[in-house]
Amino acid sequence: MRIAILGTGVVGQTLAAALAAKKHDVMIGTRDPAATLARPAHARSNTSYKQWQDANPSVRLGTFAEAARFGEALINATSGSGALPALENAGAEAMGDKILLDASNPLDFSRGFPPFLSVSNTDSLGEQIQRTYPRLRVVKTLNTVTAAVMADPALVGGGDHTLFMAGNDAEAKASAKRWLGEWFGWRDVLDLGDITAARGTEGYLPIWLRMWGAVGSPVFNVKVVRGEQ
Amino acid sequence: MRIAILGTGVVGQTLAAALAAKKHDVMIGTRDPAATLARPAHARSNTSYKQWQDANPSVRLGTFAEAARFGEALINATSGSGALPALENAGAEAMGDKILLDASNPLDFSRGFPPFLSVSNTDSLGEQIQRTYPRLRVVKTLNTVTAAVMADPALVGGGDHTLFMAGNDAEAKASAKRWLGEWFGWRDVLDLGDITAARGTEGYLPIWLRMWGAVGSPVFNVKVVRGEQ
Repeated sequence: MRIAILGTGVVGQTLAAALAAKKHDVMIGTRDPAATLARPAHARSNTSYKQWQDANPSVRLGTFAEAARFGEALINATSGSGALPALENAGAEAMGDKILLDASNPLDFSRGFPPFLSVSNTDSLGEQIQRTYPRLRVVKTLNTVTAAVMADPALVGGGDHTLFMAGNDAEAKASAKRWLGEWFGWRDVLDLGDITAARGTEGYLPIWLRMWGAVGSPVFNVKVVRGEQ
Repeated sequence: MRIAILGTGVVGQTLAAALAAKKHDVMIGTRDPAATLARPAHARSNTSYKQWQDANPSVRLGTFAEAARFGEALINATSGSGALPALENAGAEAMGDKILLDASNPLDFSRGFPPFLSVSNTDSLGEQIQRTYPRLRVVKTLNTVTAAVMADPALVGGGDHTLFMAGNDAEAKASAKRWLGEWFGWRDVLDLGDITAARGTEGYLPIWLRMWGAVGSPVFNVKVVRGEQ
């Protein structure tokens, strides 16, 4: 399957590598491919995009618009502040009515760590994206776990935990659920309703960051445990 | 143990009945006990406070101040909008430096269901309470599950799921953790840090409400599942 990933950071790289390992045709989209390839190593990962690209030669790199045109499915793996600019750069025409798995979170690090939410409570980034691109079928998902767990839920408790999903299009959510299973091995994908439920999953980030601190690692997740009926 | 519960609603009644069943001395605090006893049945529960009180004769009813003076431990079981007024009514003097388990959530139902948060992101009701009563030792907890699960975690998955806790006083949190185990049977109480982590646990309510919709019952919880170390 042809899959486009918007964003060249850790999330984009992790998902791209996992999808390429499953023999999917993957293109990563960025604003300026030449600039991305020239960028020095990131302080945290100590690896430049170019080094990662050389280690993952089957993954293509293109502009946001090229990636959006290429993908049968789109994944938004940008930062929160980068999401709307990246999609504007890709263009409504190129994205059409494709399904976009939106893994971004509207985190504002301007006041340090922990970050605040730049949109919350009465609106969400997922809704902003859906409003801006009404034809695009936005499925908010993957944004409640760290990149490594997105791509390999088996890292945590044998994969027995829950991924949330929200979106307006039932068919798109059914496809997303199937893809999340086939691509990464997600078994428990919980549909929280329409895209306004992104307020819930984005608003979960502050408690997620505190759980990370308490657990001592971002490699964890929550499992929804039901009462006896 | 003498335990005071502020608030006469479903949360207060549920916790009081569970604690009384364990032979604790429980007093429920309210603004005006006579008015509480005269109040007609609530539309949802179809039971008046008086009827509940008659069925639970060992639970005493007093003013907020009487309850605050009575309790060796205090539990805030008011609604979000009722919390600060109830504590003001109880009075700083009566509460002193006691431990308050704050189970309230700053939900704003003025625009219908689902509610919004009346404080979020950069502040929380837990912090507002702690700032207003600096001597009080506030432990934000119990607010992420429905009343029945607060009082009986075994209703869900045999009790194998997680309760969050936040507060500035390490000794108070140690006591709270022990009480939550002894009183209700909580085995997995996760300390998320200082009281600012209440932004996280209160900000979890929107996703919790969506999970309720998806699960079809409020009798559920999440379990934090850790990755292999």
